[in-house]
Amino acid sequence: MIETPPLVDQHCHGVLRTELGLATFEAQLVHSAGPPAAGTTFFDTQTGFAVRRWCPPLLGLEPHCAPARYLARRRELGGAESGRRLLRGSGVGTYLVDTGAPGDLTGPKELALAGDAEAFEVVRLERLAEQAADTSGTVAAFLADLAGAVHHAASGAVAFGCGPHAGYAAALDAAPEPPGPGEVRGAAGRWLAARARGGPVRDPVLLRHLLWSAVASGLPLQLHTGGAGPEPLTGFVRATAGLGARLVLLGGYPDHRHTARLAAAYPHVHADLGPALARTGARAGAVLAELLELAPFGKLLFSSGGCGLPELHAVGALVFREALGRVLGGWVADGAWSWRDADRVAGMLAAGNARRVYRLDERG
Amino acid sequence: MIETPPLVDQHCHGVLRTELGLATFEAQLVHSAGPPAAGTTFFDTQTGFAVRRWCPPLLGLEPHCAPARYLARRRELGGAESGRRLLRGSGVGTYLVDTGAPGDLTGPKELALAGDAEAFEVVRLERLAEQAADTSGTVAAFLADLAGAVHHAASGAVAFGCGPHAGYAAALDAAPEPPGPGEVRGAAGRWLAARARGGPVRDPVLLRHLLWSAVASGLPLQLHTGGAGPEPLTGFVRATAGLGARLVLLGGYPDHRHTARLAAAYPHVHADLGPALARTGARAGAVLAELLELAPFGKLLFSSGGCGLPELHAVGALVFREALGRVLGGWVADGAWSWRDADRVAGMLAAGNARRVYRLDERG
Amino acid sequence: MIETPPLVDQHCHGVLRTELGLATFEAQLVHSAGPPAAGTTFFDTQTGFAVRRWCPPLLGLEPHCAPARYLARRRELGGAESGRRLLRGSGVGTYLVDTGAPGDLTGPKELALAGDAEAFEVVRLERLAEQAADTSGTVAAFLADLAGAVHHAASGAVAFGCGPHAGYAAALDAAPEPPGPGEVRGAAGRWLAARARGGPVRDPVLLRHLLWSAVASGLPLQLHTGGAGPEPLTGFVRATAGLGARLVLLGGYPDHRHTARLAAAYPHVHADLGPALARTGARAGAVLAELLELAPFGKLLFSSGGCGLPELHAVGALVFREALGRVLGGWVADGAWSWRDADRVAGMLAAGNARRVYRLDERG
Repeated sequence: MIETPPLVDQHCHGVLRTELGLATFEAQLVHSAGPPAAGTTFFDTQTGFAVRRWCPPLLGLEPHCAPARYLARRRELGGAESGRRLLRGSGVGTYLVDTGAPGDLTGPKELALAGDAEAFEVVRLERLAEQAADTSGTVAAFLADLAGAVHHAASGAVAFGCGPHAGYAAALDAAPEPPGPGEVRGAAGRWLAARARGGPVRDPVLLRHLLWSAVASGLPLQLHTGGAGPEPLTGFVRATAGLGARLVLLGGYPDHRHTARLAAAYPHVHADLGPALARTGARAGAVLAELLELAPFGKLLFSSGGCGLPELHAVGALVFREALGRVLGGWVADGAWSWRDADRVAGMLAAGNARRVYRLDERG
Repeated sequence: MIETPPLVDQHCHGVLRTELGLATFEAQLVHSAGPPAAGTTFFDTQTGFAVRRWCPPLLGLEPHCAPARYLARRRELGGAESGRRLLRGSGVGTYLVDTGAPGDLTGPKELALAGDAEAFEVVRLERLAEQAADTSGTVAAFLADLAGAVHHAASGAVAFGCGPHAGYAAALDAAPEPPGPGEVRGAAGRWLAARARGGPVRDPVLLRHLLWSAVASGLPLQLHTGGAGPEPLTGFVRATAGLGARLVLLGGYPDHRHTARLAAAYPHVHADLGPALARTGARAGAVLAELLELAPFGKLLFSSGGCGLPELHAVGALVFREALGRVLGGWVADGAWSWRDADRVAGMLAAGNARRVYRLDERG
Repeated sequence: MIETPPLVDQHCHGVLRTELGLATFEAQLVHSAGPPAAGTTFFDTQTGFAVRRWCPPLLGLEPHCAPARYLARRRELGGAESGRRLLRGSGVGTYLVDTGAPGDLTGPKELALAGDAEAFEVVRLERLAEQAADTSGTVAAFLADLAGAVHHAASGAVAFGCGPHAGYAAALDAAPEPPGPGEVRGAAGRWLAARARGGPVRDPVLLRHLLWSAVASGLPLQLHTGGAGPEPLTGFVRATAGLGARLVLLGGYPDHRHTARLAAAYPHVHADLGPALARTGARAGAVLAELLELAPFGKLLFSSGGCGLPELHAVGALVFREALGRVLGGWVADGAWSWRDADRVAGMLAAGNARRVYRLDERG
């Protein structure tokens, strides 16, 4: 058996504080533009099956029990106690929590307490801009406040991130270099003038300014590869090479082999393992093996991508650990890898790479 | 063993009525821009090997016998009797027959009789336009006749389709919304004026008009994702969401994981399993497993994609059934899925999803 | 066990003549825009693990020994003797050597002698242009010298190639047809006027002229599919169909299934198996199986892609042979293929297809 140290979940969000009925629970399982089609359910997905395999035993039920039975048990225990059991059963020792997702989600401290783990914050850049815009009267004040907020976040958080829907991939594809100060002032002025309180950043110049501010801060930057795969980010990857930046690419599936290739080609690029495994369930080993084709083993980082349901955090970790054992153990059995190497690589993917990239041992 | 009900082959064509020699048979096996390269043969493909594995036993020969021996036996029995044996040995209970492919192919009734199965028609939109153009004198008459033909087809057929080479993917990529009435009249006028009798529809405005007419009819619409994968169809998918349309995407391989992602993201999008399995033979299980990563299990539909040779219908079904048993059975053996779930999902992919999407039980 | 004849390595380069330290050796293992990231090493890659699995036994050590120990043994034997043992242990009988890579590399004769094999030259088109430019005084002389060089090379070499970084994929994507004589003269004049001695060809019109000169010569042409996959080459593939040209597409991973599809669709297109296998190590069987999905078996050609380190030539061959045995043997065990067919296809991929495409038996 391949052994792993306590996992570092390098990209997740908090869990919902509310009690959940069957419909609400189901809606959190899958990213979809609408409800399941008539006659179908989101439980009939790899994610749904993986939740039914791994989570019932953590709450004292048989694996694969019916969703209604699982939800009844979850209500019986209460959401908070269920969450504790799920998180503590996942084998995760450290959470890096992206605090920018919408909804009434627990923060890093609460997640750490529930999971008996440590937690660090990943700060979402567009939230800093939106907060600065809410409180600043002029363009100059906004830009100064934003710079201060980035500087302040850099001393407390372990990384910066930017939301998957912010549209920065297209912005960087069109112009990967940092915008000039005049461009930034102009874009900020137009955005502030047109913006209603709380309105999101979508301006491509401001998004590029945010990302380059993060690069300048010296913290790692988590970037979502959007629907078009990692290709639109290639220019930004080239432009940030050799500057001391560390990029972590999230969410490349089904173009994850292209993401792995970028991680092989550029010293400062890393690739996330996360949702590609959690969402593919019984296929996680196959997807993990594809990521391990071209990516140097020091460049792949586990995450659950969990958001809202602690089931997703737990399943992400348990599916990853099983897939890792199956894939690396299989290569050892074939004679392709040695046991010693397999154990060492397992530790790198599970925790070591994240500890190094995010300098967690300096945070302690 | 995973059990499946009689299959619904949700996308196929008729079979050739003529007796076939070795060269003609070989030419039907593979989609190619020309003959096999010097020194090679189309029998040396996964399709060729799958035909040699599955079909000889249905005609009383050993698996993997030489092509010449198989063809001799086929001639000995006669094309009609060989076709009956092949179709009846496939385990298919229902054929949805796209009647728009060229060549002297059997229609739905003939296929049903030969295969001891039921059959329904999938009407090709561009054929309706070409027939209306052949018989209408004016633009107004053409458009009225076309509307009537769509309306009439909607009451008899189970779905609309559009040919893979019609170029509609590019047309929808450029402009996914329905064209306005004036645009349609203009395009119809230009096309009718320039057209020789029997000439195909290639005008992007008319193609969009046809597709939106199908959407308005309420029948499911089968769409081929072309060489560029499903990306060019994304705009049309978004534009038809929430309108009651049902889209079935055909032929996404090798971008089938992107197709599965669309089926996960949009309630009205479904994905075909067909030729990606039949054409990859010994690899069908691997491709099926990839489709099962992200697609909700209620969104995947079996087909053979068979055309011309009844061998292709039979191989599509037999390869699918074996791959399904191997993949789902493997997950059960690993503990990732329960038997009960595996059996239920097998029934959905084999027949249940198609019966629901095409409302076959209302047709009986 | 699947048996293969002595392999034809249809695309490799020479090996370095210098003795190598640990750092120099590591730098040759992986294609990267820089050194490994802090805290990581290129030995922790599938290529590194495959070298550690296969090469130590050829030098009398245990598999998977530490890199430093392997390098010490390599220095003890000397680079030349190590190279001989590695090459002779690879099972390769014939090398097609692309002589256009930079560095102090052995040529075909030296490689043949070291490996106890035969070797043929693949001539790089852009080198012919650069040599003609170095020695010709006028545009007319340059073009005449270049035509002579292509003609001369065609009588001695077995194929033409063009470097992966020359940018011809983009040039062909923009304009797949041969440029006219006036265009060529204009482009040559501009290039010669601006060029410093030894400067590389990057002009798209000259690159297209070179490629079409190779097509006209009747020799096969090896084309690298660049970072964007084989799509940009599609226009050139169409334009060269039916002209007697033979194209061999190199390096399609991770878009190798698209490359296989082109090989299925066009009689004159072939696909290289090479670095996609050597660089993915323990995953080579999975990648090989993907290539075998759609490509006709007469269209796939083994290569190592080895360059600089004889370890890469050896690993390419040994990984290929093992992967081939595992994949085809598995299909035989499943009943999907017969033994006889598996043996025959193994021989085609290992040697037969290359012997036919490059007409090696006419060279002797």
